[in-house]
Amino acid sequence: MIDLYTWTTPNGYKPIILLEELGLAYQIKPIDIGSGAQKTPEYLRINPNGKIPALQDHDRPNGPVTVFESGAILIYLAEKTGKLLPASEPGRSRVIEWLMFQMGAVGPMLGQLGHFRSAAPEKIPYAIERYQNEQDRIYKVLDGRLAESEYLADEYSIADIATFPWISMAARMGVDVEPYPNLARWEQAIKARPAVTRAFAAKIKP
Amino acid sequence: MIDLYTWTTPNGYKPIILLEELGLAYQIKPIDIGSGAQKTPEYLRINPNGKIPALQDHDRPNGPVTVFESGAILIYLAEKTGKLLPASEPGRSRVIEWLMFQMGAVGPMLGQLGHFRSAAPEKIPYAIERYQNEQDRIYKVLDGRLAESEYLADEYSIADIATFPWISMAARMGVDVEPYPNLARWEQAIKARPAVTRAFAAKIKP
Repeated sequence: MIDLYTWTTPNGYKPIILLEELGLAYQIKPIDIGSGAQKTPEYLRINPNGKIPALQDHDRPNGPVTVFESGAILIYLAEKTGKLLPASEPGRSRVIEWLMFQMGAVGPMLGQLGHFRSAAPEKIPYAIERYQNEQDRIYKVLDGRLAESEYLADEYSIADIATFPWISMAARMGVDVEPYPNLARWEQAIKARPAVTRAFAAKIKP
Repeated sequence: MIDLYTWTTPNGYKPIILLEELGLAYQIKPIDIGSGAQKTPEYLRINPNGKIPALQDHDRPNGPVTVFESGAILIYLAEKTGKLLPASEPGRSRVIEWLMFQMGAVGPMLGQLGHFRSAAPEKIPYAIERYQNEQDRIYKVLDGRLAESEYLADEYSIADIATFPWISMAARMGVDVEPYPNLARWEQAIKARPAVTRAFAAKIKP
């Protein structure tokens, strides 16, 4: 059995989507980040970074494997099953580069935009504008790629799975995807996948 | 031959260190980001994100392979040579999770700290404090890991190579590593590696 420590955030949904796509058996261990459950000594032994998600795979010949960081979990599960991440080049690097773009740009920058728009106690125009500009730049990069390719890599992959929950969350935060027509088409296509529907219907909060 | 499109930034040094560690032949193609060389139509065909580094490997049986995003380049070169990234678990996920931690946290957050401390046209105390707190939190995570392990993963790996240039750059920016004794010990050990010395002596600017 696979234990997935997660919560209802973009990074938290990534491995749920992948587990649903792969048809692997798993159980969700809710980590309520609003109550600080991600900072308990028990959880810090699973993820020393004190964030969700983290995964423990008990179906291993030499004892359980623990993985933290959503991008590492996606690579782990894709390689465990041989799916959604090609084993050979150039398809393999296409997936990993767009996954890294999500990990290093899409996630952190949309995260900062959300903070300065909604969470920060004061409205700081310079910071809000900085991250709105970065959001627009990033969306144009994604839109340009999706103008020439159906998916971020050559085929549907863990790069799409990593990126979709962030675009979806940003839309709920008021970041309109309509000015980016290829990204909007892609978002609808990913949203329509049965595994994605199942993932977002998963019971996470106890 | 491998062409490396890069410049004198933390992300730009990562693949140089790895190429030196691996002893692979490569040539540096300087992309002067101060002059906007990363946004030319020619370069955007190599990296649609308009950033450095990117790599083109011409030593491939089925034609050149192009890879962008520093984290993807590190995985590509490690897998090409079978070095500095274990092929099997649990060592493999140890490397990839700490690499992802660098890509998603160390790099973006130190980047924001640098921006608000040095580049932003106004000093915004809230933003500076936000990213100083995040730097301190991240350094404590690294320091805790390095209290129990000589390297970030179980052995010296691409996770160390990804993280070192950022810690080194932050020190030059005034972020003192001394309050984090295990991180300071690790920084000295990485700095002393001959391949790292060669990488930082590489001629990048024309």
